[in-house]
Amino acid sequence: MTAHWTESHKNMMLFSGRAHPELGAAVASELGYELTPTTAQDFANGEIFIRFEESVRGADCFVIQSHTQPLNKWLMEQLIMIDALKRGSAKRITAILPFYPYARQDKKHRGREPISARLVADLLATAGADRIVSVDLHTDQIQGFFDGPVDHMHAMPILTDYIKNKYSLNNLVVVSPDAGRVKVAEKWANTLGDAPLAFVHKTRSTEVANEVVSNRVVGEVEGRNCILLDDMIDTGGTIAGAVRVLKEAGAKDVVIACTHGVFSDPARQRLNDCGAEEIITTDTLPQSTEGWKNLTVLSIAPLLAKTISEIFENGSVTTLFEGQA
Amino acid sequence: MTAHWTESHKNMMLFSGRAHPELGAAVASELGYELTPTTAQDFANGEIFIRFEESVRGADCFVIQSHTQPLNKWLMEQLIMIDALKRGSAKRITAILPFYPYARQDKKHRGREPISARLVADLLATAGADRIVSVDLHTDQIQGFFDGPVDHMHAMPILTDYIKNKYSLNNLVVVSPDAGRVKVAEKWANTLGDAPLAFVHKTRSTEVANEVVSNRVVGEVEGRNCILLDDMIDTGGTIAGAVRVLKEAGAKDVVIACTHGVFSDPARQRLNDCGAEEIITTDTLPQSTEGWKNLTVLSIAPLLAKTISEIFENGSVTTLFEGQA
Amino acid sequence: MTAHWTESHKNMMLFSGRAHPELGAAVASELGYELTPTTAQDFANGEIFIRFEESVRGADCFVIQSHTQPLNKWLMEQLIMIDALKRGSAKRITAILPFYPYARQDKKHRGREPISARLVADLLATAGADRIVSVDLHTDQIQGFFDGPVDHMHAMPILTDYIKNKYSLNNLVVVSPDAGRVKVAEKWANTLGDAPLAFVHKTRSTEVANEVVSNRVVGEVEGRNCILLDDMIDTGGTIAGAVRVLKEAGAKDVVIACTHGVFSDPARQRLNDCGAEEIITTDTLPQSTEGWKNLTVLSIAPLLAKTISEIFENGSVTTLFEGQA
Amino acid sequence: MTAHWTESHKNMMLFSGRAHPELGAAVASELGYELTPTTAQDFANGEIFIRFEESVRGADCFVIQSHTQPLNKWLMEQLIMIDALKRGSAKRITAILPFYPYARQDKKHRGREPISARLVADLLATAGADRIVSVDLHTDQIQGFFDGPVDHMHAMPILTDYIKNKYSLNNLVVVSPDAGRVKVAEKWANTLGDAPLAFVHKTRSTEVANEVVSNRVVGEVEGRNCILLDDMIDTGGTIAGAVRVLKEAGAKDVVIACTHGVFSDPARQRLNDCGAEEIITTDTLPQSTEGWKNLTVLSIAPLLAKTISEIFENGSVTTLFEGQA
Amino acid sequence: MTAHWTESHKNMMLFSGRAHPELGAAVASELGYELTPTTAQDFANGEIFIRFEESVRGADCFVIQSHTQPLNKWLMEQLIMIDALKRGSAKRITAILPFYPYARQDKKHRGREPISARLVADLLATAGADRIVSVDLHTDQIQGFFDGPVDHMHAMPILTDYIKNKYSLNNLVVVSPDAGRVKVAEKWANTLGDAPLAFVHKTRSTEVANEVVSNRVVGEVEGRNCILLDDMIDTGGTIAGAVRVLKEAGAKDVVIACTHGVFSDPARQRLNDCGAEEIITTDTLPQSTEGWKNLTVLSIAPLLAKTISEIFENGSVTTLFEGQA
Amino acid sequence: MTAHWTESHKNMMLFSGRAHPELGAAVASELGYELTPTTAQDFANGEIFIRFEESVRGADCFVIQSHTQPLNKWLMEQLIMIDALKRGSAKRITAILPFYPYARQDKKHRGREPISARLVADLLATAGADRIVSVDLHTDQIQGFFDGPVDHMHAMPILTDYIKNKYSLNNLVVVSPDAGRVKVAEKWANTLGDAPLAFVHKTRSTEVANEVVSNRVVGEVEGRNCILLDDMIDTGGTIAGAVRVLKEAGAKDVVIACTHGVFSDPARQRLNDCGAEEIITTDTLPQSTEGWKNLTVLSIAPLLAKTISEIFENGSVTTLFEGQA
Repeated sequence: MTAHWTESHKNMMLFSGRAHPELGAAVASELGYELTPTTAQDFANGEIFIRFEESVRGADCFVIQSHTQPLNKWLMEQLIMIDALKRGSAKRITAILPFYPYARQDKKHRGREPISARLVADLLATAGADRIVSVDLHTDQIQGFFDGPVDHMHAMPILTDYIKNKYSLNNLVVVSPDAGRVKVAEKWANTLGDAPLAFVHKTRSTEVANEVVSNRVVGEVEGRNCILLDDMIDTGGTIAGAVRVLKEAGAKDVVIACTHGVFSDPARQRLNDCGAEEIITTDTLPQSTEGWKNLTVLSIAPLLAKTISEIFENGSVTTLFEGQA
Repeated sequence: MTAHWTESHKNMMLFSGRAHPELGAAVASELGYELTPTTAQDFANGEIFIRFEESVRGADCFVIQSHTQPLNKWLMEQLIMIDALKRGSAKRITAILPFYPYARQDKKHRGREPISARLVADLLATAGADRIVSVDLHTDQIQGFFDGPVDHMHAMPILTDYIKNKYSLNNLVVVSPDAGRVKVAEKWANTLGDAPLAFVHKTRSTEVANEVVSNRVVGEVEGRNCILLDDMIDTGGTIAGAVRVLKEAGAKDVVIACTHGVFSDPARQRLNDCGAEEIITTDTLPQSTEGWKNLTVLSIAPLLAKTISEIFENGSVTTLFEGQA
Repeated sequence: MTAHWTESHKNMMLFSGRAHPELGAAVASELGYELTPTTAQDFANGEIFIRFEESVRGADCFVIQSHTQPLNKWLMEQLIMIDALKRGSAKRITAILPFYPYARQDKKHRGREPISARLVADLLATAGADRIVSVDLHTDQIQGFFDGPVDHMHAMPILTDYIKNKYSLNNLVVVSPDAGRVKVAEKWANTLGDAPLAFVHKTRSTEVANEVVSNRVVGEVEGRNCILLDDMIDTGGTIAGAVRVLKEAGAKDVVIACTHGVFSDPARQRLNDCGAEEIITTDTLPQSTEGWKNLTVLSIAPLLAKTISEIFENGSVTTLFEGQA
Repeated sequence: MTAHWTESHKNMMLFSGRAHPELGAAVASELGYELTPTTAQDFANGEIFIRFEESVRGADCFVIQSHTQPLNKWLMEQLIMIDALKRGSAKRITAILPFYPYARQDKKHRGREPISARLVADLLATAGADRIVSVDLHTDQIQGFFDGPVDHMHAMPILTDYIKNKYSLNNLVVVSPDAGRVKVAEKWANTLGDAPLAFVHKTRSTEVANEVVSNRVVGEVEGRNCILLDDMIDTGGTIAGAVRVLKEAGAKDVVIACTHGVFSDPARQRLNDCGAEEIITTDTLPQSTEGWKNLTVLSIAPLLAKTISEIFENGSVTTLFEGQA
Repeated sequence: MTAHWTESHKNMMLFSGRAHPELGAAVASELGYELTPTTAQDFANGEIFIRFEESVRGADCFVIQSHTQPLNKWLMEQLIMIDALKRGSAKRITAILPFYPYARQDKKHRGREPISARLVADLLATAGADRIVSVDLHTDQIQGFFDGPVDHMHAMPILTDYIKNKYSLNNLVVVSPDAGRVKVAEKWANTLGDAPLAFVHKTRSTEVANEVVSNRVVGEVEGRNCILLDDMIDTGGTIAGAVRVLKEAGAKDVVIACTHGVFSDPARQRLNDCGAEEIITTDTLPQSTEGWKNLTVLSIAPLLAKTISEIFENGSVTTLFEGQA
Repeated sequence: MTAHWTESHKNMMLFSGRAHPELGAAVASELGYELTPTTAQDFANGEIFIRFEESVRGADCFVIQSHTQPLNKWLMEQLIMIDALKRGSAKRITAILPFYPYARQDKKHRGREPISARLVADLLATAGADRIVSVDLHTDQIQGFFDGPVDHMHAMPILTDYIKNKYSLNNLVVVSPDAGRVKVAEKWANTLGDAPLAFVHKTRSTEVANEVVSNRVVGEVEGRNCILLDDMIDTGGTIAGAVRVLKEAGAKDVVIACTHGVFSDPARQRLNDCGAEEIITTDTLPQSTEGWKNLTVLSIAPLLAKTISEIFENGSVTTLFEGQA
């Protein structure tokens, strides 16, 4: 027989884009590994150039990128990194997008619109990604936009553990800032001692984007402490408005919790001024507490590190959530 | 020059599977066309055989199938019809699924589950479908599961027009039977005179499927008439339970409205007994009012006919909803 | 260098659909393994739900399904199982279809027909199957419908060994029930001591499906014992008719052998009544000898188990047939 | 509205490879059209260069190639022509392969073989072919190797019309040269006055390719005139041997008919010497009657011309065979 | 027969991204058409939102985008526009990229690099582009990166016509700024009265990107007027250096011509100071002559307009270059 | 848990087509391995038949073919070998094409031409190749035609080492035979002691292929020894002409070096007669020194063997070129 046999090993390599190098470093540190040195630079006209400084042949590669501003650049950088890995003979490529970009465009709200969240999944696959890891997708259905394994991680346990440690669960009500998040709020309520639910009923104008006609609280919040949650906070208008409506409805303290603190201008000012007791978020996007009255940032790095480890070792990611994944 | 020129025409052909022939006939009748004669039969072992009795070469083909019981058979029949059209040189194939099968499995609820709604989209594409038409998808994101045009039609105007004609809008509250439908209920409320909202807060057990631990109404329903809505009613347990909880909370009359009346056993008995004033549905699935106390079936055929016509004529489907598509 | 190395192992997992659990269990038992526990249930409207109870990440997965009635349901179940494995990060997925469904629709008999056997191959690939194992495909060309490895196993050695042990090969003639199976009959004749051949010449009406105008035996059968064979027997009409024609032509005993005993109604009665000495089949489909006069069922499980083992261990499946694969 | 409308026309262009220019010319002549002028030449090292001398933008293009020796070159030429059409913006590309190359390798006869007939279909699709036209595929299942429309034309009516005009149908028997062609012979027998059938039972060695161990006629041929048919005759060994066996079995005149006269050396000598009354074939491959005793060549060009015309005009190809396609 | 026939028309729609609206407007104006109104805006976090204000169903759509800074954003905008057209049922989508982004990364210069120019082609195809139009690709081979028609237009006739009108061709030498552009310079020389050629021989360091070790002029330039050309000028370092080297070698006047004036900082200053007589470019990217000593901008809009017109009308783009395309 | 674990090994198998068996043997010998026995034969009509004599299941397979005359046949043979490996369950398939066929057709020189070099990449991928190894591609951009890893090896170090050992580097000039190879000549010049550059400026007629209107040397060659290089020499016309032009321009000795010695007739005579000191090439194509005055053939086998070894062992191919890959 003419086949030539040898033992088989497997190896893992970790790469980080330039958008949020602290997160990549934190994940590597959690794993006890080092990031693979990567040359990444911008040409004068804005084209991105990538080169890996070590052979990636046969490696199980994980590419972490955070999709903060300028978001399209960082997405393109991740695609180019994946292309370079594919052409460099990586064995398997996992794209890690802690904050999935364009997640809000997950359907056509009206005719002749794109479904950009599906487009992002297709672009990743075209570049060469075999699998995706993300945290708290805007809607769970985005998992189905990718034709391959998606490990959808949840920051809720990190956030609710923090809340449970710091706040009393008595007299608590979990509040969704709009009708579309009530289902998620229900999960939080289950975790937070089976707390009651409420939501803010907004009438958005179909003619003028984001113009809200009126707000009413549905559910009872009077005299209660509120956990107001969302998957992401962008300019903070909705959330700050919700705090106001809750206060008007007689709520006591309001604590805001979100996974993705996008905090586009003027979010910081709005949230500083809105009267919330505390704003809790994670570092899926780069964060700084500078200029904030009461912002708390919890790290997502241990969760990502454990996920990467389970993927490489072929363990079960589901067990990370004890039945809730 | 050696090119041989001739004028170009285009033609449309309409096909119906065997699941719900009345719907196909009604759509054809609305259009003033005839269904193309199709041989469809089952071999003794259950294999389906299809043959079209006229040439389909170059035609713009529309294949209507209703996904009622036995659902997997009718899905397979539609796939086989599409394959036969593709191999018979149809120019373009539109799959019409008024009730999109497996729509509830649109995400992984826990690990190691399929995303069957995406699988259905992929199977249709593989068979040869160029585009999909469906009505009231379980979640809007299912549009993004198909890599091509999806015309997502809405039965809400049909249902709300009926309600507006029959019931007074004073003292009305729109109720979602669970936390996941509140967003849809909000759209209905906008249409029904900006009515107030409520929903039933259920705690489902994560261990035992469908086991509900407790129910509470969030929002005010006392002394009010309720429109209780859902996209589909299967065995009717959730909806009948919601009626009970609403009545206990002091609601007056409760009218149930849903697009897809699946009505698997024992839905009819449950709904007859639950105390609802009227149950309103459409014929996206075959319906009979026999044995029902107060079931009203509205026809979806005019909506499908107009959609087909717009697609063939390259008009705008969006205009069918006056800005709401 | 930043690559992190570890030893590589591989693991195998075995899954069975609900169509024929005894076969899955028999294969597992032959291998000395256990089937992976799988939640599989029907929703009230007929939608199938699947969930695997153990992590499948990185595993070499084999999914056995038997395509008996209701055939379209079991095909869909297998597709959904494969989708769940793909999304659960299985390393490789092998679909095992002992009886390949829709194998008879392997070409367009006339215009505007599907090629459903190709469609089935495409659906399996779309769901995520990397390879297929099947037994005695209706035509060998079906191998080419799948764009990947197909292990095409043969039950002939199992059936002919049984015949050689039980019957004398003297005075034997191998008979094909129609013109299309003469080639296969030739292979059997080679194996059964280079026996002579015969076949039944039927004229099927092209207008009315399955209407046979006349039958004549081509080849000499007078005074001889006949092995009448086919790949599958569905309603038994053709085979029972062939026995009659053979008897009229002076044949002595007639033994019927087929790989796939579909036995749709009224096959049992027809075959009980046709005068055959014995009917021999395998358990590629669920079988019971109840109500049969003289049915013998041979197990295909050892063959499938050996095939799976060779695939997992990267051995040669060809050697299982000593040069006949 | 900003859309700019104009009338739509469609145009057809006809291209021929260099393998058999007479066939292309004959088809063009039947249609009353001209072939589009094409530069086709070989570079010194055997690379083929193609350039079309007119714009093909938007045209419905038909590319005729005959797969005679050197077969691989002519296949590659057709692929390159298709690529040039695709990149030149042809609207639709139909590959016409009167003799489908590698049709005999339509399955794995043993392990570790290619399925080259499927590979050919895939190569055509990859180059850009939207559809295929072929004549008398070696097996009908090859239709299913292409994921798109295949118009499978039959030369049988041309051949049997000729036979019916020239020979008396009394006392005729239709003979297949081996077990694998009995089904086709059955179709001929139906057409030729419901004639009786026979075939030659050969035992091929599985060890040494093409080594036949013994031959016997199955069916009655004594004193009868035989139509011995095959889809293709290559070196003529099998067919010439069959004539001999038939003569030994007492047959009177033997007429040979085949669609594809490959006639590789030493076919001409074998067939001249074998004692056949006449050899009838078509010009799917280039033919010359020079040096032949009694070769008749019927033209396939009218059939191809009618097929092209129906495809361009969106008529039904099926009707060309009056129910036999 | 059940097919419903109607006359076929076709329509064209023109869309422009936000990167260079003047170019889109100029192209529309040349055609005598209007751009289709498009809502395009940035969400606060940089995500782009697109919506077309008219139905695009069935239209032949052309999407113009100019890839200036921020280049990745404008590429992503074009991809999203294409996705929206695909999902809105456009019949055919042509992506127009006057300056093809990432064209310089058309190969791996060293190991573990991406081929970003191929990636861009794949991203466009994935989004839904059926064809590409571009001007003066960095290398012609980029045409082959797209699996479909690429209309590769040339600005050379526009530039050389200008030069021929303004400058005497006597005593002219065409100069390539480096070894890789000599082939292109040869084409220019042919057009400019068969002028002689020269180039600058640079040794780039393989260790430090863009570090040039030494420069020598190959070819004779002493006492001659030079046309120094390039496909694109980015920061202008190479070109300004080439002017210096030419002057040192005794050249008289030096005129610079390039298709794509990227002019990243400090290009303007370098080119103002380098001693060139005139810098000629086109508006494939937005240009302003403000702050320039002697910049001339020629419009590419008429060329793009004619190309679009030929594509829509199925004429020959090749004729636009009289045999040079 | 039901997963069954075992250790993982990997194995390599080496296959050679029939075009240049000495090269395959030499590579195997370098590796210390044997080629896997393969049945490869031509059917009488030119169809190629392939069968591997050992199981290839799970193997990392390398398929070497040399694309000499008849080039289309050997390309087809390689595609068929790859198809057989894919269907035989090879784990990974690497196609090795030392001389990449159709590399010169890497773009459309004029309209309505193919891009055959891209077509070849697509055909390889369709057949089942996962990766490609080639030597000195006609243009580097061909790497981007394949959607996967391409290991592009360079023969320059082999050729320049030989030159450095045999010839003095003093007084040397590196000459490109045309404007398109100046960039490559620049790389050689860097390697050969930073030698000066020159090239032959030809004006090719755009009307008549390969008709050169005039030749001039650009750069200084008088009294110098010239290294005249090209990637491939076909009929030798260009190169022999270049030698003549160089001699006329006063060059001393001229040494010709090329990677791919195609040497189609009448290359041998032309090169024997042209006055070159020595012609140096490699065995990427079969070579014989018979009838040559001064041909030197260097072996590419060690380079291919090292490349294969690095790919199998997941080492870095880049290091083979010490930073020049």
